[in-house]
Parts: sequence; structure tokens; C-alpha cells
Amino acid sequence: MNARVSRPIRIGLFGAGVVGEGILRLLEDNAGAIERRMGSSIEVRRVVARDTGRPRSSRFDGLLSFRPEDVLDDPEIDVVVEVMGGLEPAGEYVRRAIEAGKSVVTANKALLAERGHELIPLSEARRVDLYFEAAVAGGIPVIRVLREALAADTVVALRGIVNGTSNYILSEMRERGLDFAEALAGAQAAGYAEADPTLDVGGGDATHKLAILATLAFGADVRPEEIATEGITEVGAVDIEMASRFGYVIKPLAVGAARPDGSLDLRVHPALVPEASVLASISGALNVVVLEGKMLGPCLLSGYGAGALPTAMSVVSDIVDVGRNLVFGASGRVPQRAWRGEHLARPPIAPPGQHECRWYLRFSVLDRPGVLARIAGVLGAFDVSIEQMVQEGRGGGSDEPVHVVMLTHEAREENVRHALREIELLKGMVARARALRIEAGA
Amino acid sequence: MNARVSRPIRIGLFGAGVVGEGILRLLEDNAGAIERRMGSSIEVRRVVARDTGRPRSSRFDGLLSFRPEDVLDDPEIDVVVEVMGGLEPAGEYVRRAIEAGKSVVTANKALLAERGHELIPLSEARRVDLYFEAAVAGGIPVIRVLREALAADTVVALRGIVNGTSNYILSEMRERGLDFAEALAGAQAAGYAEADPTLDVGGGDATHKLAILATLAFGADVRPEEIATEGITEVGAVDIEMASRFGYVIKPLAVGAARPDGSLDLRVHPALVPEASVLASISGALNVVVLEGKMLGPCLLSGYGAGALPTAMSVVSDIVDVGRNLVFGASGRVPQRAWRGEHLARPPIAPPGQHECRWYLRFSVLDRPGVLARIAGVLGAFDVSIEQMVQEGRGGGSDEPVHVVMLTHEAREENVRHALREIELLKGMVARARALRIEAGA
Repeated sequence: MNARVSRPIRIGLFGAGVVGEGILRLLEDNAGAIERRMGSSIEVRRVVARDTGRPRSSRFDGLLSFRPEDVLDDPEIDVVVEVMGGLEPAGEYVRRAIEAGKSVVTANKALLAERGHELIPLSEARRVDLYFEAAVAGGIPVIRVLREALAADTVVALRGIVNGTSNYILSEMRERGLDFAEALAGAQAAGYAEADPTLDVGGGDATHKLAILATLAFGADVRPEEIATEGITEVGAVDIEMASRFGYVIKPLAVGAARPDGSLDLRVHPALVPEASVLASISGALNVVVLEGKMLGPCLLSGYGAGALPTAMSVVSDIVDVGRNLVFGASGRVPQRAWRGEHLARPPIAPPGQHECRWYLRFSVLDRPGVLARIAGVLGAFDVSIEQMVQEGRGGGSDEPVHVVMLTHEAREENVRHALREIELLKGMVARARALRIEAGA
Repeated sequence: MNARVSRPIRIGLFGAGVVGEGILRLLEDNAGAIERRMGSSIEVRRVVARDTGRPRSSRFDGLLSFRPEDVLDDPEIDVVVEVMGGLEPAGEYVRRAIEAGKSVVTANKALLAERGHELIPLSEARRVDLYFEAAVAGGIPVIRVLREALAADTVVALRGIVNGTSNYILSEMRERGLDFAEALAGAQAAGYAEADPTLDVGGGDATHKLAILATLAFGADVRPEEIATEGITEVGAVDIEMASRFGYVIKPLAVGAARPDGSLDLRVHPALVPEASVLASISGALNVVVLEGKMLGPCLLSGYGAGALPTAMSVVSDIVDVGRNLVFGASGRVPQRAWRGEHLARPPIAPPGQHECRWYLRFSVLDRPGVLARIAGVLGAFDVSIEQMVQEGRGGGSDEPVHVVMLTHEAREENVRHALREIELLKGMVARARALRIEAGA
């Protein structure tokens, strides 16, 4: 058991950007309410910034330092709050803080995804709190729900839309008939996408978040590089339109499931979901996570995934929780779902090729006799059977390619991939085939 | 500060029905995981039942008692779990347990709604925990999110679908074209509705839940009788069809909002929500609650609101949380949103007549010259202006009544009510007009 702290809780903050400023503002504006809810007041002792030259808000006056030791070596600081981002030096600071017996609140998604398997056991061994609600879908309290509300249940699956930029782009493509490049430019103009959008639209950001969620949901050590990842860059305006004709919406999904054989199925990719489903209704920059509890059934959480205010709010709620634990001498009170004192399990990751689902396939072909029959023949040879088909375009033997879209029955991913490779070699194909999963139970 | 309990946490359970049995089953099946997550094991000491004659599951063997004193007067029992339901004697037992310094976990919605304003301050004064996640939308961790995740924010509004029976009935009416009586019979056959469905379809159940949510969200003492309540019994198949023609779905809503003048707007009623909205996509027996945080923006939670398993799961998660507090001597660690140590505020409740929104109005009229002009004239005289109108039926001067549906611009509720009363007196009206709110921002 830890000692109880019966003086103001003292905080050292790494990161003096907009989130850091938002945190100071929330702590100041709500000081009275926070003290009543937490049982003690909060004192920010020091804010460590990296860039000495940058102009900053006057909120930081008298608090700024450029030496990490001013926080890490100050024995009076109880809680280290890290909102500087990036793997290093943030990871080094968090590790040293935990080793010094300080509790940590961080919003650092990359750090948790890449180093969670080291930092979580370290925090449990040192009996300090490591809280990171803001690291995944800042405005959605999914970490708290996973760690606490589902304490008596087993999570069998989770799926979500965890990259707001990708969701915004696909929503704009659908609602305004834009193509990918136009929607991306719009997202950048609206401040939803970075100048270099690779991490968002390429799926890497969602992969980081899924690694963290899967680690807690399945009590497993899941690394980002183990997750099969596909971005939304290949989704065309024509795909969105064709999906809609079949009653589907294309959404950027992250999916994790515990398979009956004990392995984990982990995937990040765009997928078709039914128009009337809840996932289809989560549009724009909103995020959503659906946890599937064995007892509870589905538990859906949605809200804004990013933004300085939601992120700062999540960080401060974590600070209040960590602070309560200090007041009561109860740090380490809630273990991560990685059961207290145990190492994280390393279940096998199911090879993506084994995944079975229905598929949306789009072929660009010359409208010549026999082309469709040859495509269908190859699919059949690989056990991929067609449920519905529609052809789009002028046809009539012209040289304009036409789009042929097929929805398949359930088929194994590796069979689909093999079939598509053979189909590419057929006469009359004018572009690579596109394949998108249809997510059941969405 | 409380003493730390360093032996198994001992539980006394009131209620030996299906939820009680589910709790015993979860505690048994997950004993190892719960002990690791909680830091101590759980021992069920006694289960108090009321009906001496009823046959029961063998899980209760050796635990049953018919004397409440066996739990209330046992000084070794740390936590009283109440799943017997009803205001009395459950309320008496909960009060006595708190007064005896025991923490309480209850699933009793009516009790919290009617007596929360006494029991919450009592539990805070005695520094014991009073947890009740299962009392509102059992499968949705909304109480935890309100009390903890939003600790640094202010809730400005909440809206939700919190009665699964009503949502199921309206969903069936829409999807299968049933009328209210058919859909109700179906819900009863499927086990979603009680033999006496009044509390569900009349709105009383949702009113209880809204009172509890509003109490926590706004830190206010809100009583069920202060909430303007309207059931779904007056919603006709024709309304569902007409709403759909305008792009809306009718949903059973509960709404609470803090108005700029400091009063609370509290309403339970069916309302039209846009087809593409998330609320529209929550169908069948699912529940949903959307919390609107000042900083966070919308935070949406959805899942099953009832059922023995979700309820038992929520109760056991609460037991684990309360148990952790006992292990750490941290009972009373998280205050209800009613700030610790303060009395609950009693803000004024805004008179429903002042509420302004867009309206769906349906009139059954004889298709005679001048009828529509007279209706429009009365609406105009009360400042209710028409945005869209559609007439449904044979027309042509026959004696069959026709339905005339109007969507209005924003109008004050009292003006709409006054206008409808005058319109009822007009010549050519064959039935009472129906008025449904259109919920903006849903």
C-alpha cells in the first residue's frame, strides 16, 4: 500500500503546446469543483518545453523550464503529465517518472502502442498509476470502460472507427460526391488532416489505437506491426457510389476479435457496413468503438477522437482519478486489464489470409463478350461465389472501360487474393481489381 | 479515511431472482479474475429472499435467509447488494445498510429516482459507497462516465433512448408496418414487454431514469414528478409512415438540458429525429444516452438497457469497484456529481410550455373547401408557421377523412397547444390532432 498524500497534489507537465495550455486552463477554471471532487487541490509545479525560442501563452509564465530533470528529479512532484508526443524523449521521461515512483498521465498514443508492453508492467511493479485515456479517441472514455466497467466480463470482439480524418474524408466523398484527392484537400483546409496525411489515411494511426485497445480488451501484448493494415487511399468515388447502390456505406474500420482457437484477429481497413447500422451513422470527424462483452453484449461509445479541448478534458479527468488515488493512498488501485502482477499474454495473431467474410470486388474491364464469364470462372475455381453483380458504364462494345462490381458470399481472404491475381492476367482487364471487405454484425 | 479491509470482501445480497442468480454465477465463474483485478476475493455470506415458498436455483443452497437482519445486523458484511426491486422494503434496507456503515450496490431504478436525494447525501455523510450502474440502462456504463470520465467537464445537455420496450415497439411498427397494438402484443410475446406495459409505454420508466441521469449530470435534486412525460401510446402507424416521408424516424426520447437562465428543461416523449442521425440508427431493444459536455462535445453510449445478464454484469463491476475501495480503505473515493459534502441544488424546472422546437402536426379532416385555410389561419394567429405540408387520402369531396400533416418552423409549445385546442372546434375536424416534437441536434 502507498502512503496517503494529504497536501495539494503536485504536477509536472511535459509539453507546452495547445493541449498543455488547455490543461492549465481547465485546472484553473475548474479548480473549486476539482478540489471538491478529488478531495485535494492541484498545484502545477513545472512545465517542461523543448523549444526555447517559441512564443507561448502567458498561462505558462513562471512555470516554464527546459530541463526535464526539473520535473523528474523533484521528489515533491506526485504526477507527471506527458503531452509532448513522439516516442522519444517522451518515452524516456515516462519511464524515468515511473521508476521514480511518480504516477503518469499521458496522451501519447504512439508511446503506448509501441512501449505499452514495457511501461504497463513497470507501472504495476512500482504500484503507480499509468493513465492514458486521451491516447485513444480523446473524447471517448473507452479506456476507463475497458478497465473498469467491463471488470466482470470478457471482451470477445471490438470494432470501431478510430481515425477521424479518414472518416471525415470518406463522409465528404459520400455526401458531396468528391473523389479522394478533393476530399483530402478539403480535410486539410478544414484542419482535420495534417500536411503529411500518411499516418491518418494510410491506417498507421488507427493501427496504433487498435494495438492499445486490443492490449486492454484481450489482456494481450499486441504490437502495431502485427496488425494487418490497409489505408483508405484506394477507395474511389465509384466504390462509394456502387456500395450505396447495394445499401452499404464505406467506413474506415479497426477490428479485433478473439477467435475460438485462442488467436487474435486484428485488422485495420476500409469496409462496407449496412446503411442502417450504427457504424454507418457515425460520420464526419466522429469516432466510435463497439466493445462486445460476453455477458454485456454490445457496448458502443462515440464522440470526437481528437482536438485540444476533448484531449485536455480527458487528461484532466485522468489527473483527478490519479489524484484521488494519491489522496487515499490507493495508487495502482485499478490494474490494467493485463491482470495485476501477471505478464501480458502473447497469443498468436491469426494470419489475415485465413479471415472469412463477404467481399465487394470491382473490376474495370473492356466490354467484350466472355470477359465476365472468365472472371466468374476464376473466382469459382478459388471457391469465391458471387451473390450479386452490377455493371456500370456505357458498354455496347465501345473502348471505354466499364465497372463491374460483385458482392460475394463468404470467402477466405487468401482465396480472394489469389483469384484477383489470376484475374489481373486475363485479357480485357484495364486496371487492378479493388477488393473491400463487407463487415457483418456492424 | 476508512480502515483497509485485508480479508475477503463479504457480501449480503437482497433478491434471489434471476439477477441475483446471475450475480452468484458471475462471482463464481470469474472468481480468479475478479480477485486479481480487485486485490481480494469475494465471499457471499447471505442471500435474503422474501417469498419463502418459491423454488430456487441450487446456487442459493446454504445461503438463503428470510430475515433481513441476517444481513443488516451482521457486522462482518461489508457490502449490501440490493436487486429485489420496488420502493419498499428495499429502500428501508438500503438506508439501514448505509447507516450501519456498509457500502451498497443496487440495481433499483425506482428507489434511486424517488429517494436518491436522501440516500446520496446519506452515503456521502457516512463515507460509504453507493453504486447503481445497473439502475439506468444496465448494459451502458453511463453512471461511471458521468461520475468519473466527465469529472473535469460540465454537462450541458443529455438526450437518450432509455426505454427498450418503447424503442422495440416503435422499431417494429416502422420496420414491419404494424400498428401500436400489434407491436405491443409482439413485444409481450418476445418477452420485451410486461403483461402490464404501462410503466414502459406510458413513459414512467424513462422518467425514473431521466431523474437519475439529470441528478448526476446537473448535480441537481431532480424528482420524477417534475418531468413532463408523454408515452408512445398515441403514435399511430400513419405517423411513422408520414414521418418517414419527410426523412424522419419516431423515437422515444428522454431529454435534459441546462438552460442559460439556470433552469432545467426535462422531457420524456416520442419525437421525430432525422433518418441519418445516430439516434435513428439505435433500434430494437437497444438504449442510447448522449451526454453533451461543454469541453468534450457529444459523448454517446449505447447498449442493451435491460436483461438479467447485462444487469448482473453491471452489478458485479460495481461490486469490484466498491471492493477495491474497501481493500484500499478508500470508500467514498468518488463523490456523486453532487459535489462531495454539499447538498444537492434545486434549480427551477422550466415550464414545458416555454419549450421551443419544430413540430409535426397531424390533422384528420373531411376534405371540404376551406378546411386547410382555417387550420392554417388558427396556427398563424398563434405564431405557429408552417414549413412543409402533405395531404394523404382519397380526397375529392368524399366523406372519408384525410390526414393532413404539417411540419412547422420553431414554435413555442404553449402556442401549439392553444392553437390545437381551437382547431379542434373547427368544422370538418374528425379526430383530435396529434402533435410530436422534432428534436434538433439529435
